[in-house]
Amino acid sequence: MNTTTRKHSKHILELVKEQLRKGQLVESLVEQQAGQQAGPRQDVVRQLVHRQQLTHLDKVLKQLHPADVAWVMENLSQEDRLLVWHMQLGTRGGVILLELSDSVAEQIIEDTAQSDLQKVLLQLDAEDLSYLTDLLPEALLQQRLDALTGEDKAWINQSLEYGEDSVGALMGKDMVLIREESTLKEVLRKLRSQQELPEQSDKFFVVDRRGHLSGVLTWQSLLLNQPKQRVSEVMAREVVTFNADEEASNAARAFERYDLVSAPVVNSRGRPIGRLTVDEVIDFVRDDISEDALNSAGIKSEEDLFAPVWHSARNRWLWLSLSLLTVFVASRVIGLFEATIAQFVALAALMPIVAAIGGNTGNQTTTLVVRGLALSQIDSSNVKHLVRKELLLSILNGVVWGSVVGLFAYLFYFDLILSGVISLAMVLTLFLAAVLGLAIPLTLQAMDRDPALGAGVLVTALTDSLGFFIFLGLAAIFMQP
Amino acid sequence: MNTTTRKHSKHILELVKEQLRKGQLVESLVEQQAGQQAGPRQDVVRQLVHRQQLTHLDKVLKQLHPADVAWVMENLSQEDRLLVWHMQLGTRGGVILLELSDSVAEQIIEDTAQSDLQKVLLQLDAEDLSYLTDLLPEALLQQRLDALTGEDKAWINQSLEYGEDSVGALMGKDMVLIREESTLKEVLRKLRSQQELPEQSDKFFVVDRRGHLSGVLTWQSLLLNQPKQRVSEVMAREVVTFNADEEASNAARAFERYDLVSAPVVNSRGRPIGRLTVDEVIDFVRDDISEDALNSAGIKSEEDLFAPVWHSARNRWLWLSLSLLTVFVASRVIGLFEATIAQFVALAALMPIVAAIGGNTGNQTTTLVVRGLALSQIDSSNVKHLVRKELLLSILNGVVWGSVVGLFAYLFYFDLILSGVISLAMVLTLFLAAVLGLAIPLTLQAMDRDPALGAGVLVTALTDSLGFFIFLGLAAIFMQP
Repeated sequence: MNTTTRKHSKHILELVKEQLRKGQLVESLVEQQAGQQAGPRQDVVRQLVHRQQLTHLDKVLKQLHPADVAWVMENLSQEDRLLVWHMQLGTRGGVILLELSDSVAEQIIEDTAQSDLQKVLLQLDAEDLSYLTDLLPEALLQQRLDALTGEDKAWINQSLEYGEDSVGALMGKDMVLIREESTLKEVLRKLRSQQELPEQSDKFFVVDRRGHLSGVLTWQSLLLNQPKQRVSEVMAREVVTFNADEEASNAARAFERYDLVSAPVVNSRGRPIGRLTVDEVIDFVRDDISEDALNSAGIKSEEDLFAPVWHSARNRWLWLSLSLLTVFVASRVIGLFEATIAQFVALAALMPIVAAIGGNTGNQTTTLVVRGLALSQIDSSNVKHLVRKELLLSILNGVVWGSVVGLFAYLFYFDLILSGVISLAMVLTLFLAAVLGLAIPLTLQAMDRDPALGAGVLVTALTDSLGFFIFLGLAAIFMQP
Repeated sequence: MNTTTRKHSKHILELVKEQLRKGQLVESLVEQQAGQQAGPRQDVVRQLVHRQQLTHLDKVLKQLHPADVAWVMENLSQEDRLLVWHMQLGTRGGVILLELSDSVAEQIIEDTAQSDLQKVLLQLDAEDLSYLTDLLPEALLQQRLDALTGEDKAWINQSLEYGEDSVGALMGKDMVLIREESTLKEVLRKLRSQQELPEQSDKFFVVDRRGHLSGVLTWQSLLLNQPKQRVSEVMAREVVTFNADEEASNAARAFERYDLVSAPVVNSRGRPIGRLTVDEVIDFVRDDISEDALNSAGIKSEEDLFAPVWHSARNRWLWLSLSLLTVFVASRVIGLFEATIAQFVALAALMPIVAAIGGNTGNQTTTLVVRGLALSQIDSSNVKHLVRKELLLSILNGVVWGSVVGLFAYLFYFDLILSGVISLAMVLTLFLAAVLGLAIPLTLQAMDRDPALGAGVLVTALTDSLGFFIFLGLAAIFMQP
């Protein structure tokens, strides 16, 4: 319950690494000696040293919060990571596994013996297990689930049904329900009879006789009011509640907006079925946005910095092959105009400018639209306003930057027609980039697809090819050899 | 204290918009009639209708949480936004201002009369004011600050000194300090004597006789232990504390890792000077990452979707001019090889491929390194490992994608030397892209600059130019006319 941890993460990592380094140093010394005069004695020494090293390391690890052990493991090479893991798994492998990032947890589970994993799983209750169902080997999970009793089994079966990014997947099982007709004194007695109260509870959920949520009682009201008073007299009646199949991002926004610490999750009849807490929400927010950022750089999922090269390659290749495909198309667009380029080779040097600026402005529009959609800031009533503004801005951009580029072209090639062509191409490309930057995410959204995933790639790819086509096409029309 | 809010934000927005629409509809009807037979009667009717509309709107707004009013305002056109604002500012303009995003708040402050702003500022205490110091007009702020009393004045002067992204800028003033020698009964009495307890308090801060933080008491321990016991007997002694000048991102990570709800901020002598709460942390996390995402698309700061075109243009031009500069350089690099391109016009069509894939792979590396640095996952002990892995991956990528591109080139131009040149160019460019993708963020970090801000732009720009140079240079060397 109490926070019994230190905060200097860097210091923690240094400590562990020092122990690991010491061990390696001594081991390599022993190995050198062993090379000189090999014998069974060296083996004994080496084992002794190794054991001593492990004892020291164990001492350091034991003082760490499980979240810190997980963090340390994420920052160690695979070999050291497994060493630390095997020292800890017997006592608190379960909690550590929960704290590890998915990519590292997956790796660890792969490299752990079946029997060790079984030990670890026994440390976890139904709620914890429900967070790990995606990562654990099917057979092992089933075996553990079979051993669960009625209520726990029901909980986990239920939670398997919720979508990955739903409130149901994030909610916890532990909550304190109190009856509205109880007095505060009775509530206090009930609470005192429990050995532990759920963490991150700023309020208790109040239910009526039929078990429906009728309000919440904060611990402040519990403490500050007279023990004789009834819960129904001092509870708050208006409560922010969630449904289990609601999107987690909605809940996250509500937590941010109303500064919530915990909130009840209710079923369709208004009965509390679980509890959402701010620690889960904050993890969700971080993962959610950080995933978007990685995706936009073409990295499929969270990448373990110390994963083998092959893992990383697979993680990044989907995007690279996609981007190759689009640039092949752009290349063929240029190919259409090879005759024109052969006559005016300056076109080759200037064409990347049109494509690059087109891609950039299109991307700016898309980023804003995707963000606006994610925050539900864009709807049918204001989309017209937004479209008008972005198109206006793109014309302004086209004229301003088109002139700048035209001037640049003139300074290098002293060809007024070429300058005119590139300026006009900029105006047209930037306008079309804005059209695409608006249309693509809005269409994806209307098709119920995630605009954050595909929009950026599509916009860049299309504006590139379009930019080349417009610029070279205009040149082919207006420039005479 | 109690959460007395609804959660269906979309519904809320619809409600407000409906009122606004109704008003417009009736007004335009009146206007039509007025056009037919103008006269003073129409004016009276219009005013009546307008007043009625405002009354309805006022009713809807009054039921909303200030955070919801702020959200509604962010999603209205400027005109409607100001209408809502002026209806609310007299009663709770201060809280709403606090909840608005910076860009919208700025706009609103600009469009509000001095005298109205003064009214709004009077609704805010020192702590709230400290969050708004950057946005308010200097003179007005000074005037308000002069009216503050001793302790409040000291607080705000102190908080002006903390950096924008420091713990000090996020921390709040309200906290409950209790003495370690008190009994729980005394603590309860003290708490009951206060009318309100600070929100988001899961724990009270315990100080010794000299006022130094000696532990924390959770409300759970307060409730579950015997009233006779002393605080020092039941408090937790190991506490996660922060310093005011620490980076807020460090604190955010600690909140995530240890699932904190609140934590004390202490001065160098260990005295509590403020309190950090999870609601501030969650807002910080959201702003922090979302800002990074916008920056990486070349949008300087959070952009108000309904801001005038000029505002948006200024917000995006810094990046566009930067990107123009880099593409001008790339254009000049191509210019160097115009003679070669004139001979082999296929080069013009193929060169964007090398540059684009180079830019993409370089960016993937940079994104991972920037993220690893932000999460403190990268340090001197593992940087070698990371460099080795990324370079190996880049060679693998170069060989694989170089072959694909070489094959593509051969299928279109049936020129083995050209195929060889582009394959080799891919290998070299991808390797150099990885080198730059690693070196640039690591160097920026070593120079104490934020790698998230400049690294992406620099890497893309350099690999573009480098890709063109390597490909065209190799072509100039190996291809004979």
